[in-house]
Amino acid sequence: MKQSSDHKPLRARTAAIGVDIGGTNIKLGLVAPDGRVLLRGSFQTRADEGRAGVLGRLVENILAVSSAARQKGWGVKGVGIGAPGPVDVRRGWVYFFPNLPGWKNTPLKAILERRLRLPVAVDNDANVMALAEFRFGAGRGADPMVALTLGTGIGGGLVIGGRLFHGPAYSAAELGHISIQEDGPLCGCGSRGCVETYVGNGYFVRELKKRLKAASAAGRGRTRRRFGDGGHGLLEGWVFREKRELTPKLAALAARKGDPVASKLWEETGERLGTMLAGLVNALNPQKIVLGGGVAQSGSLLFGPVVRTIGKKAFPIAARSVRVVPAAFGVDAGVVGAAALLFEGRNKP
Amino acid sequence: MKQSSDHKPLRARTAAIGVDIGGTNIKLGLVAPDGRVLLRGSFQTRADEGRAGVLGRLVENILAVSSAARQKGWGVKGVGIGAPGPVDVRRGWVYFFPNLPGWKNTPLKAILERRLRLPVAVDNDANVMALAEFRFGAGRGADPMVALTLGTGIGGGLVIGGRLFHGPAYSAAELGHISIQEDGPLCGCGSRGCVETYVGNGYFVRELKKRLKAASAAGRGRTRRRFGDGGHGLLEGWVFREKRELTPKLAALAARKGDPVASKLWEETGERLGTMLAGLVNALNPQKIVLGGGVAQSGSLLFGPVVRTIGKKAFPIAARSVRVVPAAFGVDAGVVGAAALLFEGRNKP
Repeated sequence: MKQSSDHKPLRARTAAIGVDIGGTNIKLGLVAPDGRVLLRGSFQTRADEGRAGVLGRLVENILAVSSAARQKGWGVKGVGIGAPGPVDVRRGWVYFFPNLPGWKNTPLKAILERRLRLPVAVDNDANVMALAEFRFGAGRGADPMVALTLGTGIGGGLVIGGRLFHGPAYSAAELGHISIQEDGPLCGCGSRGCVETYVGNGYFVRELKKRLKAASAAGRGRTRRRFGDGGHGLLEGWVFREKRELTPKLAALAARKGDPVASKLWEETGERLGTMLAGLVNALNPQKIVLGGGVAQSGSLLFGPVVRTIGKKAFPIAARSVRVVPAAFGVDAGVVGAAALLFEGRNKP
Repeated sequence: MKQSSDHKPLRARTAAIGVDIGGTNIKLGLVAPDGRVLLRGSFQTRADEGRAGVLGRLVENILAVSSAARQKGWGVKGVGIGAPGPVDVRRGWVYFFPNLPGWKNTPLKAILERRLRLPVAVDNDANVMALAEFRFGAGRGADPMVALTLGTGIGGGLVIGGRLFHGPAYSAAELGHISIQEDGPLCGCGSRGCVETYVGNGYFVRELKKRLKAASAAGRGRTRRRFGDGGHGLLEGWVFREKRELTPKLAALAARKGDPVASKLWEETGERLGTMLAGLVNALNPQKIVLGGGVAQSGSLLFGPVVRTIGKKAFPIAARSVRVVPAAFGVDAGVVGAAALLFEGRNKP
């Protein structure tokens, strides 16, 4: 009897370690089965650093979290890794990391399991973010659930039937690479008009700069605008006179203050994302679409046209049954979602 | 002992009745659990005929098949209906039939179950076709499986996790209404540039006629073309001089004989379908894409550019793991797939 009551609380207090590998920063955390982050850590990587160095410090840091966990009375179920690049989920291989040299075809799961003597699961960062939102965040209970991370590119994650959907070759949910314009701009993936080519940071900033220059050139010859059109020229001034860096965040600030050039591009960006999502809504009838990442922090500037476009372009029944919501997790999404890979039971499609 | 051996063969010999409701023709069949059609029947509907008349003859015909089945020693598990319009799969309601008046919001499942005293399942014709191909046809064992019926419109069906995927509001798999051109032609659904607006029969025939007229006008002023460019003007002659009806089938025949106008439009049609499918391949990583319906019978004229476009536009891992195949069932697809609804166990998303 005594023995059994000793074991029970220990069993209930089993957490997982989540690791979020970024381009220059690796974050770790001990995550409870309810999604709370109990302990946090992080360390920097250097561009000139080889794989062995990073791996060594990764193992050290995981062991430190693990030992701190045990001191606090938590068992460690295993380690989940969110990787910023293509991953073979089944074998736990990393194909490569865009910003870390020397990781080509690394059997990360096998290496870490040998050195840590703990179960390890590896998935890509977009899937891991989707899982965090599905298990503990804005997508809780929604099935199917679509998650997008809007940043330099668009990362996609899908939950179908209560689990991350990987597909038989583990290559599903590349949602940034659905074309909305067959003759559109060439995408890095080789296709044309992928929604990523319109909604990614790169296009947004380039296109906005081009339009600001055109507006600036057109305005120079004209007399001062009439009193009352407050936002006119606001972002032009910030960028060209005050030399502030043009980012989606600055563009959102300008749009909220009435800058017409910035407002118009936000509107177009939301419509384009909405066009792609209307197709997904017609195909999958999702209950929730969770939008995260830097670009999604523009709030109603993006969500407004996204929701309107889905309402206009998707079938009524499907459009009515979906909610488009902002991600609940910010910087913790990667750590929480990576740890949640261990709570998934089995790591299958 | 005797009783048990009497029962066993009866149990093993249980079939289902499939009903394929078309615009002018209703087909029925007794379908074995292995997909064989054991008995066939059909009757015509008239445009001026009300719901009660059609329902009465439907019940009569089903009872006739059922009694013939029992005489041949087959038990009847139930009746599956493939409906040519939007359906509430959960409740077995028909919202309306485009070509049959008076069916608005018909509780078809409840009506038939009361009159037949047999379990009844209802789904739309595209899903039913997909199920026939998944269970017994060209999509057997493929998961996910995507099926398209290419005709006047594009019907879509999805199998995920071994079952038809309906989505929580039963409105998934509207795959003809994924936009490939955000500023493309207005679609009947209210969106723009849906793949159906390019690949459906209507556009294909209209566009081809337009191009043939233009080619005809351009050719009139010129001298006879040089010897050797065999197909030039072939389809023009068939349509404008011989007054043959311009159909996708005739266009396929002309393209195979070298008609450049027809060949070019088939190429474009395949590329557009391929663009949409590349997006689905990136999103769902399907193992098979099954193409059925009239337009798909053009063979390599369509399949060639579809496969090349997927190879060019989808991610390599996903593109390599999908096979694009013609549907195995022709006219029997509806009857077999409708009956297969009864072999699905439960009729859920």
